[in-house]
Amino acid sequence: MTGDPSLRAVSLADIQAAAARIAPFVHRTPVLTCAALDAMTGGHLYFKCENFQKAGAFKMRGAANAVAQLDDASRLRGVATHSSGNHGAALALAARLMGVKAHVVMPANAPQVKKQAVAGYGAEITWCEPALDSREKHLDSVVKRTGAAIIHPYNDDRIIAGQGTAALELFQQIPDLDLLVTPVGGGGLISGCAIAAKSLRPSVRVIGVEPEGADDARRSLAAGALLPAAAPASIADGLLAPLGPRTFAVIRHFVDEIVAVSDAAIVRAMRIVWERMKVIIEPSAAVTVAAILEDRIDTRNRRCGIILSGGNVDLDRLAW
Amino acid sequence: MTGDPSLRAVSLADIQAAAARIAPFVHRTPVLTCAALDAMTGGHLYFKCENFQKAGAFKMRGAANAVAQLDDASRLRGVATHSSGNHGAALALAARLMGVKAHVVMPANAPQVKKQAVAGYGAEITWCEPALDSREKHLDSVVKRTGAAIIHPYNDDRIIAGQGTAALELFQQIPDLDLLVTPVGGGGLISGCAIAAKSLRPSVRVIGVEPEGADDARRSLAAGALLPAAAPASIADGLLAPLGPRTFAVIRHFVDEIVAVSDAAIVRAMRIVWERMKVIIEPSAAVTVAAILEDRIDTRNRRCGIILSGGNVDLDRLAW
Repeated sequence: MTGDPSLRAVSLADIQAAAARIAPFVHRTPVLTCAALDAMTGGHLYFKCENFQKAGAFKMRGAANAVAQLDDASRLRGVATHSSGNHGAALALAARLMGVKAHVVMPANAPQVKKQAVAGYGAEITWCEPALDSREKHLDSVVKRTGAAIIHPYNDDRIIAGQGTAALELFQQIPDLDLLVTPVGGGGLISGCAIAAKSLRPSVRVIGVEPEGADDARRSLAAGALLPAAAPASIADGLLAPLGPRTFAVIRHFVDEIVAVSDAAIVRAMRIVWERMKVIIEPSAAVTVAAILEDRIDTRNRRCGIILSGGNVDLDRLAW
Repeated sequence: MTGDPSLRAVSLADIQAAAARIAPFVHRTPVLTCAALDAMTGGHLYFKCENFQKAGAFKMRGAANAVAQLDDASRLRGVATHSSGNHGAALALAARLMGVKAHVVMPANAPQVKKQAVAGYGAEITWCEPALDSREKHLDSVVKRTGAAIIHPYNDDRIIAGQGTAALELFQQIPDLDLLVTPVGGGGLISGCAIAAKSLRPSVRVIGVEPEGADDARRSLAAGALLPAAAPASIADGLLAPLGPRTFAVIRHFVDEIVAVSDAAIVRAMRIVWERMKVIIEPSAAVTVAAILEDRIDTRNRRCGIILSGGNVDLDRLAW
């Protein structure tokens, strides 16, 4: 593993242990195919439907894996995080299912559906500005007040291992994939999935997709150093977070390529998935399909696994 | 079997033969569950996702079964039907897959997405007024001109047997259902499904759901005679057709109850399915969920199969 040698790498065994640990708290999601999208791309596409996951996104896997490993003293003090939505909702639900109090710091401009989910799962919400320093400042004060354990959305080995269970399951369901494509935000999903995929099937090519307006992973990978994300902006609100040192180290070692797509391509891809597959995905989940439809990823005659990462959209505010 | 003794009943064997005949042309659709909807209703709900079927609705099953049984002379002359959308699209696609020409008479006010589908599958469209007599007059003239074989949307044993394969599959996937709930329009779906369900599991209770604005099946069942549908109107545009003699005879014999729901309840149910299940269903498919959420059907502690009949909606014109 390149990158900071002090970072202990997550292993396939960690991901397998996570899968057993979280099994009572998450869904084993189905894999769907779509004849129309296969015809449009020339590939064989296998969609891992994490939009059907509890709390509507893959984030439930990592959150459940982190909460399940708290010691008794930490359980009593609760957990805390900052999140634009899906990680907050997942942590809130995972904590509730395990009888732990959750505190979530959220930007006030987060999508309504995500705010409602976090509140609905019983978490205590603290509102902040939509910027990393505001999030962190508010989270600090919550932790000082409550003693809660911070569960970072992605830069945490427990989270990375939990998210990797999505690919572990996908390879159990469809073993002979040539490609695996996932969205990239903070990098937790692609890190865990790349470790699982390359461990189970070294020949698989792992590709991450970012919005053009938040392409710090692509730039960091090209530069060979973790670059800051300057004013990220995209309709894919779940992909605005910058990589962390842990996820960057994993991505450098395990991910073959990062590509970026425009917001217009994301909206087009999202609509095609709604219309042809009849499943609801959020913009952050549509980046992978956008990259394939825009020919940034060649899936022709290849068996391609795609993580449909989440389905939490505000039905009163659609992008078209 | 009550009703007209001249009507030959469709049997389980006919449905099993249909399943084998159409297998190359249709999807075996998945069954989804939803923890949130189970919690809301107290039941165990199993959703048979015919919205994922080819052409976006269960109609593909009946259409494929009818086209596959044409003799060689009929194949050369083609097939014709009138349809507000899903049957027309299904017949167009089934005919194309089997190399047969299709003619579809459609009301000019049919949803845009359904018009596009029929045209996209290569059928020749004839526009008509949105009333049964206009549909039939135009269909007559198409048939006189082309010699095409009329494939009625539901009052046809080949169609009834084909639609029944949805329930045949569902009972293979979930054998021990206590209830089976389907939408009722012209009655082809519920007729085939009820024959399959009662033949495979006599203890199962079969319930049909109609829009209040097109409740001729409920009224006909109560009256013991096939009543006309006076000016049917509902957001569930796929359920406006009246029962036919064949489907009424089957429903009298095999269906336990017909209930009706308001358009407001249909829209609420449709939104809940989109938000919580992350799958796209059309209003005609939402009637079943509406009846359960409105407590017209008691699913508490029961294992309830639900046919999600279709997912063809115009994403630019949502009902909320």
